[in-house]
Amino acid sequence: MTNNNLSIFEELESSVRSYVRSFPAVFTKAKGSKIWDADGKEYLDFFAGAGALNYGHNDPKMKEKLVEYIQNDGITHSLDKATEAKGEFLRTFNDVILKPRNMEYRVMFPGPTGTNTVESALKIARKVTGRTDVISFTRGFHGMTIGSLAVSGNSAKRAGAGIPLNNTVTMPYDNFVNEEDSLDYLERFLEDNGSGVAIPAAVILETVQGEGGLNTARVEWLRRVEEICRNWGIFLIIDDVQAGVGRTGTFFSFEEAGLKPDVICLSKSIGGFGLPLAITLIKPEYDKWSPGEHNGTFRGNNHAFITATESLSYWKDDSFEKSIQAKSKRITEFLNRIVEENPDIQGKVRGRGFMQGIASSVEGLSERVASEAFKRGVIMETSGGKDEVFKLFPALTMTDEELEQGFKIIEQSVDAALSVYKQAAD
Amino acid sequence: MTNNNLSIFEELESSVRSYVRSFPAVFTKAKGSKIWDADGKEYLDFFAGAGALNYGHNDPKMKEKLVEYIQNDGITHSLDKATEAKGEFLRTFNDVILKPRNMEYRVMFPGPTGTNTVESALKIARKVTGRTDVISFTRGFHGMTIGSLAVSGNSAKRAGAGIPLNNTVTMPYDNFVNEEDSLDYLERFLEDNGSGVAIPAAVILETVQGEGGLNTARVEWLRRVEEICRNWGIFLIIDDVQAGVGRTGTFFSFEEAGLKPDVICLSKSIGGFGLPLAITLIKPEYDKWSPGEHNGTFRGNNHAFITATESLSYWKDDSFEKSIQAKSKRITEFLNRIVEENPDIQGKVRGRGFMQGIASSVEGLSERVASEAFKRGVIMETSGGKDEVFKLFPALTMTDEELEQGFKIIEQSVDAALSVYKQAAD
Amino acid sequence: MTNNNLSIFEELESSVRSYVRSFPAVFTKAKGSKIWDADGKEYLDFFAGAGALNYGHNDPKMKEKLVEYIQNDGITHSLDKATEAKGEFLRTFNDVILKPRNMEYRVMFPGPTGTNTVESALKIARKVTGRTDVISFTRGFHGMTIGSLAVSGNSAKRAGAGIPLNNTVTMPYDNFVNEEDSLDYLERFLEDNGSGVAIPAAVILETVQGEGGLNTARVEWLRRVEEICRNWGIFLIIDDVQAGVGRTGTFFSFEEAGLKPDVICLSKSIGGFGLPLAITLIKPEYDKWSPGEHNGTFRGNNHAFITATESLSYWKDDSFEKSIQAKSKRITEFLNRIVEENPDIQGKVRGRGFMQGIASSVEGLSERVASEAFKRGVIMETSGGKDEVFKLFPALTMTDEELEQGFKIIEQSVDAALSVYKQAAD
Amino acid sequence: MTNNNLSIFEELESSVRSYVRSFPAVFTKAKGSKIWDADGKEYLDFFAGAGALNYGHNDPKMKEKLVEYIQNDGITHSLDKATEAKGEFLRTFNDVILKPRNMEYRVMFPGPTGTNTVESALKIARKVTGRTDVISFTRGFHGMTIGSLAVSGNSAKRAGAGIPLNNTVTMPYDNFVNEEDSLDYLERFLEDNGSGVAIPAAVILETVQGEGGLNTARVEWLRRVEEICRNWGIFLIIDDVQAGVGRTGTFFSFEEAGLKPDVICLSKSIGGFGLPLAITLIKPEYDKWSPGEHNGTFRGNNHAFITATESLSYWKDDSFEKSIQAKSKRITEFLNRIVEENPDIQGKVRGRGFMQGIASSVEGLSERVASEAFKRGVIMETSGGKDEVFKLFPALTMTDEELEQGFKIIEQSVDAALSVYKQAAD
Repeated sequence: MTNNNLSIFEELESSVRSYVRSFPAVFTKAKGSKIWDADGKEYLDFFAGAGALNYGHNDPKMKEKLVEYIQNDGITHSLDKATEAKGEFLRTFNDVILKPRNMEYRVMFPGPTGTNTVESALKIARKVTGRTDVISFTRGFHGMTIGSLAVSGNSAKRAGAGIPLNNTVTMPYDNFVNEEDSLDYLERFLEDNGSGVAIPAAVILETVQGEGGLNTARVEWLRRVEEICRNWGIFLIIDDVQAGVGRTGTFFSFEEAGLKPDVICLSKSIGGFGLPLAITLIKPEYDKWSPGEHNGTFRGNNHAFITATESLSYWKDDSFEKSIQAKSKRITEFLNRIVEENPDIQGKVRGRGFMQGIASSVEGLSERVASEAFKRGVIMETSGGKDEVFKLFPALTMTDEELEQGFKIIEQSVDAALSVYKQAAD
Repeated sequence: MTNNNLSIFEELESSVRSYVRSFPAVFTKAKGSKIWDADGKEYLDFFAGAGALNYGHNDPKMKEKLVEYIQNDGITHSLDKATEAKGEFLRTFNDVILKPRNMEYRVMFPGPTGTNTVESALKIARKVTGRTDVISFTRGFHGMTIGSLAVSGNSAKRAGAGIPLNNTVTMPYDNFVNEEDSLDYLERFLEDNGSGVAIPAAVILETVQGEGGLNTARVEWLRRVEEICRNWGIFLIIDDVQAGVGRTGTFFSFEEAGLKPDVICLSKSIGGFGLPLAITLIKPEYDKWSPGEHNGTFRGNNHAFITATESLSYWKDDSFEKSIQAKSKRITEFLNRIVEENPDIQGKVRGRGFMQGIASSVEGLSERVASEAFKRGVIMETSGGKDEVFKLFPALTMTDEELEQGFKIIEQSVDAALSVYKQAAD
Repeated sequence: MTNNNLSIFEELESSVRSYVRSFPAVFTKAKGSKIWDADGKEYLDFFAGAGALNYGHNDPKMKEKLVEYIQNDGITHSLDKATEAKGEFLRTFNDVILKPRNMEYRVMFPGPTGTNTVESALKIARKVTGRTDVISFTRGFHGMTIGSLAVSGNSAKRAGAGIPLNNTVTMPYDNFVNEEDSLDYLERFLEDNGSGVAIPAAVILETVQGEGGLNTARVEWLRRVEEICRNWGIFLIIDDVQAGVGRTGTFFSFEEAGLKPDVICLSKSIGGFGLPLAITLIKPEYDKWSPGEHNGTFRGNNHAFITATESLSYWKDDSFEKSIQAKSKRITEFLNRIVEENPDIQGKVRGRGFMQGIASSVEGLSERVASEAFKRGVIMETSGGKDEVFKLFPALTMTDEELEQGFKIIEQSVDAALSVYKQAAD
Repeated sequence: MTNNNLSIFEELESSVRSYVRSFPAVFTKAKGSKIWDADGKEYLDFFAGAGALNYGHNDPKMKEKLVEYIQNDGITHSLDKATEAKGEFLRTFNDVILKPRNMEYRVMFPGPTGTNTVESALKIARKVTGRTDVISFTRGFHGMTIGSLAVSGNSAKRAGAGIPLNNTVTMPYDNFVNEEDSLDYLERFLEDNGSGVAIPAAVILETVQGEGGLNTARVEWLRRVEEICRNWGIFLIIDDVQAGVGRTGTFFSFEEAGLKPDVICLSKSIGGFGLPLAITLIKPEYDKWSPGEHNGTFRGNNHAFITATESLSYWKDDSFEKSIQAKSKRITEFLNRIVEENPDIQGKVRGRGFMQGIASSVEGLSERVASEAFKRGVIMETSGGKDEVFKLFPALTMTDEELEQGFKIIEQSVDAALSVYKQAAD
């Protein structure tokens, strides 16, 4: 008899619930890359809160600081008043992240979620440029509130708005149609005054599209986007909510490309511990907000400031980066091998860093792999418009042993999934 | 020499910061209705996180449960997977709040902020009805993301969108133009097929408009709105983000009116401790979401589930309600006395329960009162389109002694503010 | 056997055809207020092309000038090149209409239909003010292209757009809700910065709403609208497409009220002969168009210039106005008598000048009256959201005898329609 | 001393006037391809009312019929009542145009201008499909009212709307970016559910883009567009307002490609004589209009019915088509020769049939050619986003002699324009 009783969720929670359907268990505890359910069953986490748990679950140092803060009656909720915890975060973020990268930005607290930072980024771009339209890219995902949804590609989620989503134009992401010309195309539209596309306030993009199927933009493509933005006086907004905070091997996902975005959106792992937090980085010359022009109740989540500040210790030297990069290589190698050894997958390795996966042309296969993995104690999800990608998204702190253990189970899951398909085909 | 050094905020934080300008101190600790700054100065909190701290700061029982949970490595972040903490919250919310009120609703976790719940409410109303427009009311405030902003009245905040806000029609709130006919007007627009106003998907409203200036709708007005919604098959959405969770004297603000909203939006104090949480309550027959049709990274904030569950202990019998109502009366009496004894304020008492204040016709006076109060150790804010209202918004757990102490300081602040005005007039 | 064979229309014309259903005959000739069908049956025209034939059919002098022009190979089509015919029209319009009324306006040729002039009026208002929204009034009708439809009230026609109609706000026309406050309401929305209604680019209105049911704004209401526009820097656009060119007793419908609109829309009878023509009058200081910023193929309809110029002869002294006004009185008296003597109609006289009718509360009665009239040789139509008004809309040149003859038939038609209703009720 | 006095236009006409600036004369008479100004100066018309005068000015037979009709007091204005003249037009259009081409369509009279037919086409597509978006193409031009403007590409004209133009997506026209993939691109957007582009109600296009710079779609491109529309259940709307009625060598411009559009828009020369008329052809199965759902005052322009019916005599056998095609060749040959012999033009021949021209990469050259031609007695205009094309747009009835005479003058004008440029360069 299991203790994983889901009846309370079935009775009382809205039908919109989703992950509970893929991972039907009641989870109770978690530590590092391990999670346990109500039966005490242990799972290896290759999901990491969709990128909100880059440092794993309940990191001991952050936990210690947080408990200490709470026990001392530190301010919990502060709107956008000044608190010690917030001041400390600002100072540390500047010292550890911005200054060493020669980045000068103002930090905005737009509310604690990814969609809050995107909405604030779009607003400031429109305010400063005085223009209305925003260019986004195919398969981009930026959030579920109307402003962010308008720049997201997924048709089912867009339809969920129930109203037309306006003031946006979708352009082809790198490799969307074919290799050469997705930016030729964008440039033609901008330069031709009969193109029907007005010069936009901003271009918004993810350097790797986590939800869109781990599509990755090449460095030269990113650089050319930035150049186009400069030429036309368009804001470049990098949505680093999922790809940022180390997931691609550097703190920001665009460091290799050397971009200087006008606005950067961060959330998910910026809080360190999985607590709601988001920040919007704005170049000082564009920080033209009036006081309170954008606001929100949970901008000042001090628990998250405490853990966020502590999490930045990981970035005080380059050892963490190097470890991520080394492990990323192993993930790539593993996935390449799986694709090569299993031609039946009809697979392609996608993504980079700790956001890699395999896109399979076999309908339903990737979902099957994920559900086989869950049975075997690995939590992983799929992404892409048709869930065609199974996605390795572990915490950046996952140990080599855990990685290997996960690889083994994932390989078994691929085999199991394929055998189901072969049976069906026979 | 003060420790309230704000330079880090001035250097690094975006110019959008706002409350730090009204309350220029660095806060460090808080307990119940008291807050301390870096110099150890004590403040009495008549602001309560704009309604996010209805149970005061760092309630000892919630704190105990939270620390225990963290120390045991309870799941922190879970997206919308099932966790023990979430299950416990659902069960308790149903047992303590919904069932005793004969309310049957599905609970949706739309993301942890007020604007998330409003956006989700608008989406489900549009989906179920197949219509696009939403009717909101003058001076309503529902959030800062584009969907919520479109149904908010404040012109400066609307302009901040940088794009036209569509698919909404604003109707006059109770007493906006004059006493009799604001709903006659609404009905005329609905019934006349030449009115230019289509039958909307939903009507959204606050029973007391916290941000809009503590405007209060009468019970009979609210009932007639509900009746109109029923007659025309329009969703009634009550945004109880600020007025809910006890602030008006009952758990929901519409209990006296006996409304049965189709959708209810809750956030702010629903988490109990000031941690980000929001829920959307939907009548079961309208819970037509597809899985994942609306989602978000921080839907499963388990720390908030723990404190939210504990906070519901306040509601297990009617003693808390009675205490709120008794204290509300004292607030009303105090404010009435202030208005009567100070005709120079040209004031009117507005609001109900623990969200009352005085609207002054003297330009700038209310802001002056608030800043005088801050000097004297009381934190309170203003609201309304011209900040014409100074607003008493204490925690519902504030003691009688603290209330009295606050009243005294507020009265002194009114005197001080008025004397400044009289000097200016001389 | 009739020659009124409609089969070719039923076979080949779109189902959108409409008047052919109310007036099922094939018309062949027309002169003054008389029309003949293929069987030679004569009809008295109380419809006048919905206001496009204010001078009746085929006015002899205009006809003479037109034939002469054609026979001399005068330019027919000229886009917006200069032609003698166009120059003559401009000169005459200025001399006969504008100057004597102390009106200084630039004349724009926006394309030959009512909706063209409205679209151009909205564009110039938005351009000059830099604002997007336009306030229109309940039951207003301004045209069927998307820009004009967005400021029109009729719900079925709006739905026909197939897309949300944005950037407009509908306010209550005079007497829409009750007598006193429709402009109090408008002013409250403008002055309150929490009303959700932005200061608009323009207010657009008809002084009498022809399609909306012959609703008439009082002089003092119109003046207050103008005052509000002045106070807030809002363009006042009078759509005089139907009520202008003499229909209310003066050339412009707003002469009694003494308005000085920023933009005036004219079409329908401005061409004199029923030929497509429209003009937009713009105060010189607001004529900020770039060349060609608005254009169209049929702006230069020279045949219409010829007849339009000739038609202005009617306005060289005040005899025509006086005659319209005298006959208007007779129409009012007739309609008042009908209402009084036939309480079963539950009727109210609506409108003014040569656009009057009776609104009947009896469902379907007005349509019945119109169809009975058609049987008896009078062409008249209904208007209003539920076709509740039967509408006397004769040419301004209709003789007293024809008027009397029409009155007689209309009275018979009312009797006939009522008797049908009484039979049904028995 | 000239009689071409433009002062009345400068004083009284809006600054929006445009062609009068390029062709500064007062025109008085016209016959065939000749126009005369107030000084009696004769011009050869290579402009033909931008395609509204395909049969030249004041065609003798149409003129005769028209004068006769007027003299007999034929109905002039009839809204959408049945008239003999309209019935005759419907019958003749079906017999002469539709039936011989195996085309079955319902004829809608949407108002007398090009933008009216486009607005009606978009409405019916949205109504029948229940979708909102429409795909148009780069550099397309469909009209100046908001609905049509939303599907037009020109940025200056779009900006003139003063509001965002929504519910449309612009795709690259044939050869806009490069040769191969403009439809691959369209298909990728349709098939990928993460593309941000919803399946549209309709695709609207011109087979040759008259205003957009004489860009011509290849037959195979057009066929593939149609195939894509069929595959996805999208309405194919061909806007043949400018390219139709013979201008490309066949009555409809898509006859060579063999398209079967769901909706066809015709205006300009459909009236034959330059009188305002437009029709919308709708496949019978999609003619789902409710009566009066789209309407307008000047739908029934009987003068235009008379001339339109007469104009169809040109199409009773294939001699007219053959003559157009033969002359088209001569135009092509002439333009090719000009380009070859004048490398300094940096020119490319664009367009087909009687809508050809030369696109010059030399800034301002094409406008110079047009103004030199005007001095020499030829009226021609430029087109394209930067007016880079000078455009030969004669009546289809222009004689060989007139063509030759025009060619000669145009060649001289090219020489003159080039010499100005060379002088400037020296």
